[in-house]
Amino acid sequence: MTASLGHVTPQAMQFADPLPLRSGASLRDYTLAYETYGTLNADKSNAVLVCHALNASHHVAGTYEGQAKSEGWWDNLVGPGKPLDTNRFFVIGVNNPGSCFGSTGPMHTNPDTGRPYGADFPVITVEDWVDAQARLLDRLGITQLAAVLGGSLGGMQALSWAMRHPQRVRHCIAVATAPNLSAQNIAFNEVARRAIITDPEFHGGHFYAHGVVPKRGLRVARMIGHITYLSDDSMEAKFGRSLKGEQPAYSTQDIEFEIESYLRYQGDKFSEYFDANTYLLITRALDYFDPAREHGGNLAAAFAPARCKFQLVSFTTDWRFSPARSREIVKALLHNRFDVSYAEIDAPHGHDAFLLDDPRYHALMRARFDGIAKEVGA
Amino acid sequence: MTASLGHVTPQAMQFADPLPLRSGASLRDYTLAYETYGTLNADKSNAVLVCHALNASHHVAGTYEGQAKSEGWWDNLVGPGKPLDTNRFFVIGVNNPGSCFGSTGPMHTNPDTGRPYGADFPVITVEDWVDAQARLLDRLGITQLAAVLGGSLGGMQALSWAMRHPQRVRHCIAVATAPNLSAQNIAFNEVARRAIITDPEFHGGHFYAHGVVPKRGLRVARMIGHITYLSDDSMEAKFGRSLKGEQPAYSTQDIEFEIESYLRYQGDKFSEYFDANTYLLITRALDYFDPAREHGGNLAAAFAPARCKFQLVSFTTDWRFSPARSREIVKALLHNRFDVSYAEIDAPHGHDAFLLDDPRYHALMRARFDGIAKEVGA
Repeated sequence: MTASLGHVTPQAMQFADPLPLRSGASLRDYTLAYETYGTLNADKSNAVLVCHALNASHHVAGTYEGQAKSEGWWDNLVGPGKPLDTNRFFVIGVNNPGSCFGSTGPMHTNPDTGRPYGADFPVITVEDWVDAQARLLDRLGITQLAAVLGGSLGGMQALSWAMRHPQRVRHCIAVATAPNLSAQNIAFNEVARRAIITDPEFHGGHFYAHGVVPKRGLRVARMIGHITYLSDDSMEAKFGRSLKGEQPAYSTQDIEFEIESYLRYQGDKFSEYFDANTYLLITRALDYFDPAREHGGNLAAAFAPARCKFQLVSFTTDWRFSPARSREIVKALLHNRFDVSYAEIDAPHGHDAFLLDDPRYHALMRARFDGIAKEVGA
Repeated sequence: MTASLGHVTPQAMQFADPLPLRSGASLRDYTLAYETYGTLNADKSNAVLVCHALNASHHVAGTYEGQAKSEGWWDNLVGPGKPLDTNRFFVIGVNNPGSCFGSTGPMHTNPDTGRPYGADFPVITVEDWVDAQARLLDRLGITQLAAVLGGSLGGMQALSWAMRHPQRVRHCIAVATAPNLSAQNIAFNEVARRAIITDPEFHGGHFYAHGVVPKRGLRVARMIGHITYLSDDSMEAKFGRSLKGEQPAYSTQDIEFEIESYLRYQGDKFSEYFDANTYLLITRALDYFDPAREHGGNLAAAFAPARCKFQLVSFTTDWRFSPARSREIVKALLHNRFDVSYAEIDAPHGHDAFLLDDPRYHALMRARFDGIAKEVGA
């Protein structure tokens, strides 16, 4: 029997100690928004941390009371009787600093100036997020995670946990991720950033003071993102060349094809709630992630400190982070003779597949967490 | 011995007869800019029409006197002793109406209003361009082309020639093209258009009157385009994750990676000379091209009227118009029992490969044109 978690409640934790960042700057007086589901067992061995990607948050599963359509972003995976079973595990979702869903971000007050950070929010990296998450676990009294789990940018955080806090992770599960961004990945991020930064309503990142939002830039950024999240095939299957009307209207500015309507809708929706500075920060965190870099490009050397077991998952039609990128990680892990499982799931949905409930993918995740539950007595 | 054509001179032809367009509108009092290279032989059998893609023009080969770096866009292919040998063929390049390099376009005066067309320039299709080109050939006294040649959007025009004017084409050579745009192709076009249209300096397409240019939108549009022209591999080989500086500067707004610098440069350069309304018109012409549509999706039926021989060429790393798209065309042509040759060139450069002088590709083109020259006595 699977069921939804029902209503969940976000929590917040304040941190007075400055968080040293990879850039050399630090973040002080910050708050982390988080949620937990299930019960931490007596020996605190059943905690699973779920790391989020660009457009997600600490709200991993369940719903908010009185809010329609408020399911968490991974509600199909996390809940009672679900693959990551909250009857057995204590699941933690944390909103990363720099994001715009509750943790300290660019829209909050910069203690140095008394005004919103805006573009002055310090540049933050995957490693910084992992360290912030580790501090939250300290405060929750959790020494070791049964598992750390993430997809896409969340997968990078899971991998970073294994490298930075090897004693604190038993299992690392990294889905639809990559050891770093390719030139093409960075290129897409850069175009999205340029769309935002050159929007006249961006005001150098200090638009809050002007009472405006660079929605034009955010829309374009989101549209570009969406193209890279879907596979060519699934876009073709879902929209193809279908026209909005019966016949072509012969217009350069109006919507003519269904795919245009879909993309505009996604862009509009996104621009209503996402923060422009957060978009810049998070795409930069993606760009910068490159654990091999300080080991002269040797990814195996970067993973050498790890002590956990690894599960990697990729999807055949994901062209953002293709299976070949996961295989690079697997190769580096095997070089270290780690315990590694790797699944390449034949799924049509492109990068977005990691958020969907493909039966083979979810069966794999269920089996993996069943094994972990036995191992930690959950 | 190959040599450059040396200095060439653009010409212009006026047309008073309105050109009926597919949209139902018509274009009146228009001019076509064109260039010719080589000599039309006595029986006018050696003419080759070269059709251009988005960002090109009638200036196919040679240079302009007193202008540095003014080589035509296909100068490596067209000239004395080159694969398309101007010692044997009479080569014609025509700037398509709606473009911004000399033929009547949105920046020119609308005879109905006395002001620049701007966004009121009629929506124009591949078929309309082909018909405009046919009228130019009428005026040049050319009844039948030895060949029509084009790459990408130019390839669509070459294919359209074979369907619309079957008696006027002996050979159709279509390179790196597609029978229509996929949903993903349309999606990229739409994002580029949104970037332009939502630029406040676009003024609904009537920016000429405001003395401004929507450069922000044009830059973003060109950056998106560039990503789709290059292969993932060639971008990786050329730029990879190379930083502009020695160490990361940790900035969200400044250039950090070489690929960003390259894309911004391409965007800046493009925004200095390309017309925003032309960008909309040409991407729409791409979107609308779909000869199978009025035959219930049956591409073979669309090609049935053709009478010429066909050469199709694709490039293995082209993900904009992949080899699979060329194979769709080949299949439809073979269904009609036409004389079809198809070459899939193993080249690393993605869609842009059609403009480069890959030795196997150029050897193939040379052999093809040698054969055509013999056939027409050129």
